[in-house]
Amino acid sequence: MSDIKNIGFVGLGIMGKPMAKNLIKAEYNVTVHDRVRPAVDEVVAAGGSSVESSAAAAAGADAIITMLPDGPDSELVILGEGGVLEGAAPGSVIVDMSSIAPAFSQRIAAACEAKGVDFLDAPVSGGEPMAISGALAIMVGGKQAVFDRVAPMFEPLGASAVLCGDYGAGNTTKLANQIMVAVNIAGVSEALVLAKKAGLDPQKVFDAVKGGLAGSNVLNAKGPMMMAGNFAPGFRIGLHQKDLRNALLTATDLAVPLPITALIQQIVGSLVNQGKAQNDHSAIANFIEDMAGTTIAD
Amino acid sequence: MSDIKNIGFVGLGIMGKPMAKNLIKAEYNVTVHDRVRPAVDEVVAAGGSSVESSAAAAAGADAIITMLPDGPDSELVILGEGGVLEGAAPGSVIVDMSSIAPAFSQRIAAACEAKGVDFLDAPVSGGEPMAISGALAIMVGGKQAVFDRVAPMFEPLGASAVLCGDYGAGNTTKLANQIMVAVNIAGVSEALVLAKKAGLDPQKVFDAVKGGLAGSNVLNAKGPMMMAGNFAPGFRIGLHQKDLRNALLTATDLAVPLPITALIQQIVGSLVNQGKAQNDHSAIANFIEDMAGTTIAD
Repeated sequence: MSDIKNIGFVGLGIMGKPMAKNLIKAEYNVTVHDRVRPAVDEVVAAGGSSVESSAAAAAGADAIITMLPDGPDSELVILGEGGVLEGAAPGSVIVDMSSIAPAFSQRIAAACEAKGVDFLDAPVSGGEPMAISGALAIMVGGKQAVFDRVAPMFEPLGASAVLCGDYGAGNTTKLANQIMVAVNIAGVSEALVLAKKAGLDPQKVFDAVKGGLAGSNVLNAKGPMMMAGNFAPGFRIGLHQKDLRNALLTATDLAVPLPITALIQQIVGSLVNQGKAQNDHSAIANFIEDMAGTTIAD
Repeated sequence: MSDIKNIGFVGLGIMGKPMAKNLIKAEYNVTVHDRVRPAVDEVVAAGGSSVESSAAAAAGADAIITMLPDGPDSELVILGEGGVLEGAAPGSVIVDMSSIAPAFSQRIAAACEAKGVDFLDAPVSGGEPMAISGALAIMVGGKQAVFDRVAPMFEPLGASAVLCGDYGAGNTTKLANQIMVAVNIAGVSEALVLAKKAGLDPQKVFDAVKGGLAGSNVLNAKGPMMMAGNFAPGFRIGLHQKDLRNALLTATDLAVPLPITALIQQIVGSLVNQGKAQNDHSAIANFIEDMAGTTIAD
């Protein structure tokens, strides 16, 4: 059993807000900070407290969760003036659940260690629906003892939490996850566009292949969206663009050429240029559809 | 119930031989032809009859199955001198279960129709293990009434048989299937190579992501092979090369650009040049590993 009772929480966006509410429901004392007032009010109404800075959210907390858009945001909110690390007591743990480049996680971890504060990077997969239902997949980087201490706190948030390695390993795993997802969406897109332009009913193709080696969670989740021409998010292309950029930056640091990921990043960039950043990432199909002059949906 | 009792079967390769034996086990009268004597002997020992030409295998048959490497083989064996169509009686049905370009299926179908012989293209997915266990996924193109007549004959062969559309639709669906599979293998490869070179244990990455949107039958089946460095087939790269070539030829005919499939075809061609045509298609990972100077396996 963990000694964690008091949680600071910074970043009440689409993901952070339901996560904070799930921790309150699990009877943690949750103190939140965000500049967006309606989100703060909603979490306070659910039983949380609010404070006016990240440092104040960290003060007196056993664990401080940050849930922010990208690496520079995490760095600023945790290490900046009035930031989490300023308020965090030695022996407390900062759990950055943002999806960022692993190099940022490693830099932040080093700064925390220097102040005697523990750190985990713990990005998640599953999107808003799983954040709400508390069924996220949590990918963690850091020390085993710290992970063991924090693990009970992950229970109201996730269906699984796996320690993948040392600092940054959670975010490296998340990048690997995002590569697999983006590439698979692109493959499903090319396959269904080809079938449609050949005159087939994509639903029949879907039914014929889903049980075999081509079967995947992407096909099951995104195939029907493509067939319906429904690209409402879900997970936004703009966020997947960020993840692919971080994957390629990390791959460049490690001297790992990723030709397929790079091609799909170019496609995603083109879709963002077309104003589709807010569409679901299944709209990668739009690029293939436009090239072929057809749509998977009727 | 079907009136099909007597089956001609041409092509006793890795797939055809166990399929013919499953039909014999289901008490069909099976007459086989192949130039490879040991395969013929094995099927005769299991209760089949053998004849010396494709035309002779078709003579007196209610249905004739062909299971051959590629489109030109199907065309020669079905339409050539001494071929299946020469021996097939009007009202019988030729079921070409080879994986070939849909344009070949359509040409063969037209020649059969002209002689009053029915035709289905019915390629399969699942490889040798599913051929042996009679659990193939069968993707069918042709007329509904012909499909309905033949459907009982598919039962000893497959776990599913789906009529996907008119002539060629079975093979178009198979190409869509092979695109999804090849692209997904490549995505899993890039993700696991990146994670490994970042210092992570690929098994932990696998465990952390397999239940989420990145989860797929490819990840479950091929991820462990990559992590073990075991690229024994399975499904040979040389055959996937053929399928991707047929996919791109078909896509060119239909004016459908497939940039990701094309890139992966280039990678597969490189692996074949390196003498890896007989390796499992999961060896697509080798190309990414070589570029990165690391292997997913320890």
